[in-house]
Amino acid sequence: MRVTTIHAARDIRLEDRPDPVISAPTDAVIKITAGCICGSDLWPYRGENPITAGSTIGHEMVGVIEEVGSGVSSFKAGDFVVVPFCTCDNTCPHCVNGAQSACENSGFTTGGQGEFGLVQQAEGSLIKTDGLPDAALIPSLLTLADVFPTGWHCAVSARVKPGDTVVVVGDGAVGLCGVLAAVQMGAEKVVAMSRHEPRQQIATAFGATHIVAERGAEGVKRIKEITGGVGADAVLECVGTDDSMRMAFSAARPGAMVGFVGVPHGVKLPVDRMFAKNVGLAGGVAPVRRYLPELLEMVTSGTVNPGLVFDSVLPLSEVAEGYRAMDERRSIKVLLQP
Amino acid sequence: MRVTTIHAARDIRLEDRPDPVISAPTDAVIKITAGCICGSDLWPYRGENPITAGSTIGHEMVGVIEEVGSGVSSFKAGDFVVVPFCTCDNTCPHCVNGAQSACENSGFTTGGQGEFGLVQQAEGSLIKTDGLPDAALIPSLLTLADVFPTGWHCAVSARVKPGDTVVVVGDGAVGLCGVLAAVQMGAEKVVAMSRHEPRQQIATAFGATHIVAERGAEGVKRIKEITGGVGADAVLECVGTDDSMRMAFSAARPGAMVGFVGVPHGVKLPVDRMFAKNVGLAGGVAPVRRYLPELLEMVTSGTVNPGLVFDSVLPLSEVAEGYRAMDERRSIKVLLQP
Repeated sequence: MRVTTIHAARDIRLEDRPDPVISAPTDAVIKITAGCICGSDLWPYRGENPITAGSTIGHEMVGVIEEVGSGVSSFKAGDFVVVPFCTCDNTCPHCVNGAQSACENSGFTTGGQGEFGLVQQAEGSLIKTDGLPDAALIPSLLTLADVFPTGWHCAVSARVKPGDTVVVVGDGAVGLCGVLAAVQMGAEKVVAMSRHEPRQQIATAFGATHIVAERGAEGVKRIKEITGGVGADAVLECVGTDDSMRMAFSAARPGAMVGFVGVPHGVKLPVDRMFAKNVGLAGGVAPVRRYLPELLEMVTSGTVNPGLVFDSVLPLSEVAEGYRAMDERRSIKVLLQP
Repeated sequence: MRVTTIHAARDIRLEDRPDPVISAPTDAVIKITAGCICGSDLWPYRGENPITAGSTIGHEMVGVIEEVGSGVSSFKAGDFVVVPFCTCDNTCPHCVNGAQSACENSGFTTGGQGEFGLVQQAEGSLIKTDGLPDAALIPSLLTLADVFPTGWHCAVSARVKPGDTVVVVGDGAVGLCGVLAAVQMGAEKVVAMSRHEPRQQIATAFGATHIVAERGAEGVKRIKEITGGVGADAVLECVGTDDSMRMAFSAARPGAMVGFVGVPHGVKLPVDRMFAKNVGLAGGVAPVRRYLPELLEMVTSGTVNPGLVFDSVLPLSEVAEGYRAMDERRSIKVLLQP
């Protein structure tokens, strides 16, 4: 099959590799309908994470089950499934407690930017649709693999509640999904911090009530204006840099929570400020499976349309251009069609 | 009046100073029935915080109102009151939101280790008992000034809920009050980490179900044994050092919260571990006034006896010995009688 590999920083290739095979009873092989490029794929692409030359890359996909292992009973060949980027048995003590990303049998999904993907712990990880979905639903279903549940987890971790004023730091696909999540949870004011007009438009389509283009001290000043000098009830940090984390803490009112879902890169947490202001922090790798039943229903019922974050659709053969477009911020998120 | 002053590390004196006077309409002067030494007073005592030579020290007290300013209407001379260490108007947006320690008009209480104390924002800060309390209740009432609400805040911040397994790091008076808080909130297992038998006994009296004397890797191993390998649902960090914070995060199960109320000294938060394990952190300076109605009722009804943390009662004249006893851990917490 054809699958995307990374050989060095900015060296993305589409190569032929053997089709994945079932090697454990809990495995499933998926014929991919749509995959995509994740913001976190840009860390190795930019050389900011270590790279194993020639390894496959890509962990978000939806598709049709090709084959399942003998231990998988709830899914069969032909089912259309969402594949969470982190897999889980959904039965261990951590899963039962809602921390599926810390499952005792957790694994990751591979081959997402290719023709076939391999899923470990398929029984506990996958969720299927009723029949084959309309093509128009595919982008939103694909966001369920990672980016929508991750934004949702950020809002859950920040404890967004009805009536809140919420600030979202980061206008990538996760940040935009954070806006959507906060709106769906009943936040009254949702402030999207974004300098990019196409992203501002999606934030607004998702229900953002305010756009703040300023950063740093000017950004904090604008947040203070919007919140009557008080600060935000909840803040979603959806980037993972030290600057964005500082911005998040500066936007939070005393007693607030900052949710964080961007993999931390060089973040030093301001513990003295957190203590003095009683601003907490929670979040991490999203326990995707936990949220899937609820979010799948929201997508299939048409309540939300998170697929708007895909502003570019490319054939798999152009995956390298997809990386370039996202790296240069010409594209928010690229959907790949095998 | 006589009041305690600090002149340098380990140089505590009882000196004559002018009686406090009302200088703002929101002030009140308190004739102190009982004051005490706080664990946080040991930071300057040990030279680990800057010292202004000759400044008064002490911020926990209960007593009888001597005089109130013209803006204080709910309290009058003769009322017996608990004086929170941090004062608040209890009407600003932060107070209304439960973050009284971040009150827009916050201040601190002074003179707590003396004969008379001055309270700013008396109307919003104080709480009074029905008549003069029995002498036997004084120690528990005195804990309401700081240490019991601080332990309570730690448990609230860690989101302790009925049935939880809770680990408390730190066996000072705040940690012991954290044990008491977790038990009152319905935790099923409460693990007190303590190597000191008198403190272990108080923890047990407060309802701790397990005592862990080990620290570091051995301590983590014991916690894992107690929790069936899973880790604690909630952890209370009641010290404020980097070691204790590390211990706290090591004890937490994925998805758990660490509450923290010890003023951080040299703490570097393990952001990567927090992210990978979805372990959050919340807490800070306790919003004492928020909890006082509930905790005062618990004390006056005899439901709890947090006054057990006072294992030593000294006349005010022996305050310097009180500091030595706490510094050398011969005493958990010293009550001072003017």
